[in-house]
Amino acid sequence: MTFEVTILGSSSATPIFNRNPSSQLLNINEHFYLIDCGEGTQLQLLRYGLKAQRINHIFISHLHGDHYLGLVGLLSSLHLNGRTKPMYVFGPAALQEIIEVQFRHSETELRYPLIFQAINPEQSGQIFENSDIKIESIILNHRISCTGFKFIQKKRLRKAIKEKVEALNIPKEFIPSLKRGLDYVDNAGMVHKALELTMEPDKPRCYAYCSDTLCSWKYLDNIKDVDTLYHEATFMHDMLERATETYHTTALQAAEVAKAAGARQLLIGHFSARYRDLIPLLDESRTVFTNTQLAIEGQTFSL
Amino acid sequence: MTFEVTILGSSSATPIFNRNPSSQLLNINEHFYLIDCGEGTQLQLLRYGLKAQRINHIFISHLHGDHYLGLVGLLSSLHLNGRTKPMYVFGPAALQEIIEVQFRHSETELRYPLIFQAINPEQSGQIFENSDIKIESIILNHRISCTGFKFIQKKRLRKAIKEKVEALNIPKEFIPSLKRGLDYVDNAGMVHKALELTMEPDKPRCYAYCSDTLCSWKYLDNIKDVDTLYHEATFMHDMLERATETYHTTALQAAEVAKAAGARQLLIGHFSARYRDLIPLLDESRTVFTNTQLAIEGQTFSL
Repeated sequence: MTFEVTILGSSSATPIFNRNPSSQLLNINEHFYLIDCGEGTQLQLLRYGLKAQRINHIFISHLHGDHYLGLVGLLSSLHLNGRTKPMYVFGPAALQEIIEVQFRHSETELRYPLIFQAINPEQSGQIFENSDIKIESIILNHRISCTGFKFIQKKRLRKAIKEKVEALNIPKEFIPSLKRGLDYVDNAGMVHKALELTMEPDKPRCYAYCSDTLCSWKYLDNIKDVDTLYHEATFMHDMLERATETYHTTALQAAEVAKAAGARQLLIGHFSARYRDLIPLLDESRTVFTNTQLAIEGQTFSL
Repeated sequence: MTFEVTILGSSSATPIFNRNPSSQLLNINEHFYLIDCGEGTQLQLLRYGLKAQRINHIFISHLHGDHYLGLVGLLSSLHLNGRTKPMYVFGPAALQEIIEVQFRHSETELRYPLIFQAINPEQSGQIFENSDIKIESIILNHRISCTGFKFIQKKRLRKAIKEKVEALNIPKEFIPSLKRGLDYVDNAGMVHKALELTMEPDKPRCYAYCSDTLCSWKYLDNIKDVDTLYHEATFMHDMLERATETYHTTALQAAEVAKAAGARQLLIGHFSARYRDLIPLLDESRTVFTNTQLAIEGQTFSL
């Protein structure tokens, strides 16, 4: 099952050095989820040849402009390009007012249903579920209410053992029930145990997105044992004071969070405009957590 | 006196083919005026090395997203980058609500004064004046209230005739009064007529911006004898029906307007997403008005 993220923007508050504000496109089993939608996100999707119409769910972490100012433009373009299927938007309650006031004054009546779901800013918890995944909100600690998101794959069906299935000439149509645990009875009436013809499925994977936040252990329980953690790393650690007063995290702190959470991989992003070269942030993070990657725009990471 | 425009975006409603939504930067005597501010305008300014902090006046034609969705991001970045001098924003009355609701929810208190001036959507007229120019609104005819803008240079002072001034050894500090028409009296008490030592100033120039609108003769009086006319040309003329029903103009019609207005130069823009190649629009316009140019992003036109 595909489980990967493409970075569309990794700049903090002000765009600079060709870095765009925050946005990521998550592909889970060919279903597309957009996380944050900074200004220019629809242009970034075009740049990387990603089809905006395939997105059905959008998650906005908070109402600082660099995380949502591209939303109304994207929703509007989807409308103009003929969308009819629903779009689900999750975000702070006030986002609904921001969207509505703009569509009201532009006299836009969307051709597709826009289903808005306000996220509780005070209580982490499940906000979405389908056959592939569950999504949970994570309460972060920023200047204004801000939530992260955790995307948790569901436990998959067991996998058929190819050699055994072929040796018994089991017809294809029996494979799904075999995966679900139903034994196979052959033409001679002999029972073949499903458990012996199948093996454990891949371990369900988990991706957490944490931006923007003051580094804290408060959300550690929410991201325990994630496979990949995206964590903001706005500053280098020599700017700790500035990071703290602006409710942001340093590259070193992000690595400490990833280590404490037991993550397998760390992506850092939301880089301050003061850093043209990002390698020092990467190096700093790797002193604590080796498997750190920079969330560079246009790059896709397997999760 | 510098009088030029740099195109930042020339796409119609949906951005495509690396074309950004509408925005233009006007340089009048090293004062900078932004006309419309589609999504990504601040990124376009960065791309072309234009300093956003030098802009003091912003003019928004109407509240379709492709003409203003970059405004809150730009105003926010100016704030974060330390601006203290005032910014004047002219636009439809409802734009103020759109700006305020977003700054309220992001808990942004701008460090600089934001002075908003609502434009009367029913009456053309002067909306701004300084020592260089007057600016007038132009009532256009779009699906929602929409105004164009006319930038009119003021009559300049007369120009000193270099050879005559040098021949008489007239000290530099007397030149400004000479330009204003005061005669020069030399040490011997001899009077030299200012009119003879100076010549007629350059003819004041005029730039009009008309986007978006159904083509009509109603605004012709407002753009009579402009030097350069920017006029939207969303479609080719074979799409006249579509242009009419969406309250837009064809390339042929834009040329007819420029011709009837007696313009010297026509810039066409606001190109529909259906045109990857813009040359056919240029060719069509030139069949009626030879001095047509495509408003291509990153290009600067002397006005």
